[in-house]
Amino acid sequence: MDIIEIIEKKKNGLILSEDEINFVVREYLNENIPDYQMSAFLMTIWFKGMNYDETNHLTIAMARSGRIIDLSSIPGIKVDKHSSGGVGDKTTIALIPMVSAAGVTVPKLSGRALGHTGGTIDKLESINNFITDLSIEKFIENIKRTKASIISASADISPADKKIYALRDVTGTTDSIPLMASSIMSKKIAGGADAFVLNVTVGEGAFLKKLSDAISLAKIMVNVGKSNHKKTYVIISSMEQPLGYAVGNSLEVQEAIELLNNRGPSDLKELCFFLGSYMLIAAGIVKKQIDGITLLQETIKSGKALNKFIEIVKNQNGQISQIKKPSLLPRAKYHEDIYSFRKGFISKVQAKTIGQAAMLLGAGRKKKDEHIDLSVGIILKKKTGDPVKANETLATVYFNSVEKYSLIKESVQKSFHITDQKPEVKPLILKVIS
Amino acid sequence: MDIIEIIEKKKNGLILSEDEINFVVREYLNENIPDYQMSAFLMTIWFKGMNYDETNHLTIAMARSGRIIDLSSIPGIKVDKHSSGGVGDKTTIALIPMVSAAGVTVPKLSGRALGHTGGTIDKLESINNFITDLSIEKFIENIKRTKASIISASADISPADKKIYALRDVTGTTDSIPLMASSIMSKKIAGGADAFVLNVTVGEGAFLKKLSDAISLAKIMVNVGKSNHKKTYVIISSMEQPLGYAVGNSLEVQEAIELLNNRGPSDLKELCFFLGSYMLIAAGIVKKQIDGITLLQETIKSGKALNKFIEIVKNQNGQISQIKKPSLLPRAKYHEDIYSFRKGFISKVQAKTIGQAAMLLGAGRKKKDEHIDLSVGIILKKKTGDPVKANETLATVYFNSVEKYSLIKESVQKSFHITDQKPEVKPLILKVIS
Repeated sequence: MDIIEIIEKKKNGLILSEDEINFVVREYLNENIPDYQMSAFLMTIWFKGMNYDETNHLTIAMARSGRIIDLSSIPGIKVDKHSSGGVGDKTTIALIPMVSAAGVTVPKLSGRALGHTGGTIDKLESINNFITDLSIEKFIENIKRTKASIISASADISPADKKIYALRDVTGTTDSIPLMASSIMSKKIAGGADAFVLNVTVGEGAFLKKLSDAISLAKIMVNVGKSNHKKTYVIISSMEQPLGYAVGNSLEVQEAIELLNNRGPSDLKELCFFLGSYMLIAAGIVKKQIDGITLLQETIKSGKALNKFIEIVKNQNGQISQIKKPSLLPRAKYHEDIYSFRKGFISKVQAKTIGQAAMLLGAGRKKKDEHIDLSVGIILKKKTGDPVKANETLATVYFNSVEKYSLIKESVQKSFHITDQKPEVKPLILKVIS
Repeated sequence: MDIIEIIEKKKNGLILSEDEINFVVREYLNENIPDYQMSAFLMTIWFKGMNYDETNHLTIAMARSGRIIDLSSIPGIKVDKHSSGGVGDKTTIALIPMVSAAGVTVPKLSGRALGHTGGTIDKLESINNFITDLSIEKFIENIKRTKASIISASADISPADKKIYALRDVTGTTDSIPLMASSIMSKKIAGGADAFVLNVTVGEGAFLKKLSDAISLAKIMVNVGKSNHKKTYVIISSMEQPLGYAVGNSLEVQEAIELLNNRGPSDLKELCFFLGSYMLIAAGIVKKQIDGITLLQETIKSGKALNKFIEIVKNQNGQISQIKKPSLLPRAKYHEDIYSFRKGFISKVQAKTIGQAAMLLGAGRKKKDEHIDLSVGIILKKKTGDPVKANETLATVYFNSVEKYSLIKESVQKSFHITDQKPEVKPLILKVIS
């Protein structure tokens, strides 16, 4: 087989065989196919796409390029969760304790922040001594004991995806639906769970801007799941404004804990209940979504979810006093309020700009392996639809560098669009595909 | 400027600016843009194309990446010629002496063989001591004295094209019309002539298979010529069967000399007269094509063209006794005839297969810098439309390795398709674009 012939075949709109796709993934990982041929191949896929079979073959080839975690020693249906990312998305931290308190077994592999979107692993590292790179043996042991554990995907999970993703990132091929689908699903399949609940975000603050693209991505992932006997639910949600009020690592952990204390932002709660109810359905614990939501509400009212989170943190060596008393979490040295110029209604809070501002403060990273400041971030005081007076606080910025604060101050203020008329607030949950 | 943004722009069908194109060419040559980003960019162009302006900007950027030969010290209109390549295409060797004998000033930069197509520079090296890498000063001196000189394009002629072409060759992006046009035109513009006559071949033995693609390529090149004040004529000709009878370096030189002696194959003569008449028009020597053809016929009848070739060879240190007595040119040790299985009419002589067979004998190279055997090749005895008897000779193969001969014998025989009905012979010259 020859990579140039495979490129030509795809260029001319033909369907690649399983053997051809395996060849490309294997030989790229073996460095027999150089980056410059792989990037030409990936760009060909950007233009010509891949059908379900091709996407599935690519997914499996990438998943099998590394370790596939064997969770068979854990009884019952294991449900994993994934989000395509957003600003202020601390869902995992609140959701996993809730669903595991309601009886779902959750082996959760998470990622780190990149660009304007945060990462669960970084957020959890706001908790002192919390270990995110547990061995698989310890991971399984924790799940058996507590029903949930959250670790970072190690280098041997879908290494072909890691190498391909790094190349896509610098060659303009990240926004290909089949490449996105195979990247997400290869990591999920390698993670070893039996069913997946995937949250695809769409809007200004998300990677995908159009609902139609999100639906395409969702359908492909559901199909790949089906081909691999993994029941897959995709919940498409809006990411026009940040989720909840907090953006920044320790601030988001604190907000997640708020939710586990039966307080916290209503949009975050809505998304957690929605995703969680599908995790309960996937696990066979409830049949109807409404029953799932009732059960999840119960876990936070009763304190079971908070206790579950404490257990998870304890299993991973984290300092539980910080969960019990979130004011002990890392705090930035300074904070300043950002004020409104005029009165009216908030018509928009630009998620991407807020995410980028938080990143520039140090809460995120532009490039892999950059250091993160876990204490900094932004707390919104207003969200879309809220009335606002002139000189009222729109947001509070938490920072350790006055210089960095002065650089982002204006962009935070400009992220809030204010109109005279009260705007129509659009729904958070847009569609479910399964 | 950022290469990823430029890729995204082209991906989304937007027009690139002159600055953006200059940036890509300059930074690729400077190695600030790595191969993997350039190949993604080139594949984007394969899909999205380039308009006239973009193609022109790319052409100029590549031409200016190296030396632009200054021919201003040579009086009059300088006319360069180019062919997109074919099997048995020894046109340059016969044509340049003819047109320069008729008064055209020809500064000819030529290339080497690659794949199944030959290269003028290799062919001319069949002549003992013939120097193809003259200095530009010597090149100009020869043109002043003799009106023509044929040298190989040195490394400093369009170096960006050389680097980009090498990458296109291994990433499935050779068959992009704007990339082909800019590659050809950048080298021609760097060559410094005032007008160009370009032969685009189309058909089974050529790079382009469809006439419509050849017309697109021709139109773009004519336009790029116009933008650079270089009058450009493109003659599209058919390359379904080899041109003339001889395929292989010294064999082709011999056939070109035959033509200069007012003998030789009628198709080669037709193409030389056709291209040559446009070179005469471009030089302002004749107004009508028919006058040009009459003038060219005169140069071979009178022996002036042959004398001009002897002068050119002498200027470049070649052994002129081999021109006067072509049997002194390199000869392969062995030759064998290939016979027809059946009687009928030749309906096809597969140019590509013949070209590949000659390459495998050693007459060509699969990869750059491979050694070439100048003495080997194939002489066709039959061409499309010819009647043939059973066991009649179809071709004679000249070889130095019995093993190589045995490998290609069958494919040479199979290149000749024989039918009962006399086939319609299609025209050689398909279209002129100017």
